Amino acid sequence: MFEIIGERINGLFKDIRQAVAERDPKPIEMWAIKQYEGGAHWLDINTGPIASQEEQAEIMAWMVKTAQSVVDLPVAIDSTSVLAIEAGLKAAKGKAMINSTTAEQAKMDALFPLAKQFEAAIICLAMNEKGVPKDAESRIALAGELVVNADAYGIPMTDLYIDPLILPVNVAQDHVPEVLETLRQIKMLASPAPRTTIGLSNVSQKSPNRPLINRTFLVMAMAAGLDSAIMDANDNDLVDAAATASILLNQTIYCDSYLKIFRQR
Amino acid sequence: MFEIIGERINGLFKDIRQAVAERDPKPIEMWAIKQYEGGAHWLDINTGPIASQEEQAEIMAWMVKTAQSVVDLPVAIDSTSVLAIEAGLKAAKGKAMINSTTAEQAKMDALFPLAKQFEAAIICLAMNEKGVPKDAESRIALAGELVVNADAYGIPMTDLYIDPLILPVNVAQDHVPEVLETLRQIKMLASPAPRTTIGLSNVSQKSPNRPLINRTFLVMAMAAGLDSAIMDANDNDLVDAAATASILLNQTIYCDSYLKIFRQR
Repeated sequence: MFEIIGERINGLFKDIRQAVAERDPKPIEMWAIKQYEGGAHWLDINTGPIASQEEQAEIMAWMVKTAQSVVDLPVAIDSTSVLAIEAGLKAAKGKAMINSTTAEQAKMDALFPLAKQFEAAIICLAMNEKGVPKDAESRIALAGELVVNADAYGIPMTDLYIDPLILPVNVAQDHVPEVLETLRQIKMLASPAPRTTIGLSNVSQKSPNRPLINRTFLVMAMAAGLDSAIMDANDNDLVDAAATASILLNQTIYCDSYLKIFRQR
Repeated sequence: MFEIIGERINGLFKDIRQAVAERDPKPIEMWAIKQYEGGAHWLDINTGPIASQEEQAEIMAWMVKTAQSVVDLPVAIDSTSVLAIEAGLKAAKGKAMINSTTAEQAKMDALFPLAKQFEAAIICLAMNEKGVPKDAESRIALAGELVVNADAYGIPMTDLYIDPLILPVNVAQDHVPEVLETLRQIKMLASPAPRTTIGLSNVSQKSPNRPLINRTFLVMAMAAGLDSAIMDANDNDLVDAAATASILLNQTIYCDSYLKIFRQR
């Protein structure tokens, strides 16, 4: 079952930044409901840049509680601060997700124990201190390191969401087939297989036809084994594409009203 | 480079049936130009049902000449009659395509020699007298027979367009992943690899959202190795999806105006 991680509650968007500054719950509640209605399975929560780690932790907890006060959806705690991630995990109801670790040893050693402690899922980026790899082979090597380390910390494979990292097609076109190949191979790294995810909109940065590029890549990636994406849950054409891919991949049973059924989760 | 085989000059459409009955070249010319403008690389030519084989052969030759009198595109001679196929091949300018043989020995023995004689490409359906196979393994077995027989007749692999056959998702949903897997494996049957094609609109027969299902399946199939499709060259969203898939698969070089460039062939 493909999962949509709604990207919209993020301080990089102006309305959320303002909501955070004014501690106004309304925009956060509105986007929680709107993304739920769009078909989101998870709500990503990101405070945006906050100078103090303590303040960021406090704001993260408030945002998580605010979002979960209006919809019954799990949250993905999206931060580079371990303190903010821990605060988000403590505030979250039900299963949560950490967004994200890389394959850097220090990050894995900080975040895998948290994932274990809170029985949280965790997004694992296939990159390390050297940056984003160029080809599938190097991405798979990093995915392998993530799998081995997560396993050593006792995290079940189904809680790993490995992100092979997609770069914009207009600057790194040759990466796209490598990312698709990486998705296929991640599924062979362990049994049961780790899950996969992607920060979808990155593929279309600074291109015209962004929605078209996003949905076309999403469909290809799903056919290669993509289980979830951080994406715009309110782009109806995009959600329709995901629903249709899900039907064609025989992941959900066909019925004539499948587009509606898909949004009911 | 992905190729669109325009499906519209077919006696199963009412306007073409009438054009054939009245020997009126206008609708054929109109659709030849329109499909050319839509981005077609080939024009499929099908007379529709004609009782007499001799008459069908004569009509096929007339249709081919009519279509090629207005646009500089190769034709796919679409008929179950060997006589009509031969007449179409004789009438065609430049490279032509035969649509189609199955893996039935008698059909291969009738059509591969014609393909060889005219240096024509040939669509090869992965089915035999037993019908359409259920799984990828059986489809691949038939594709293997087609490859071996074509090779024995001296036909280059790049002239084979193997069609794994897609059934409607609403009645044979479990076939879809099998067809995608077949497309992947066909590419491993020979070196250079045979080409692949599909009768696209079949996937959405009797479903609502037909264009959405068609373009979603096309994108998945292209990511699995589909080189061409018999399709609606005037469904702009579908051609946009093909162009975008082609960019994302790194088959054509990205530029901001890639949708326009794709249609210029």
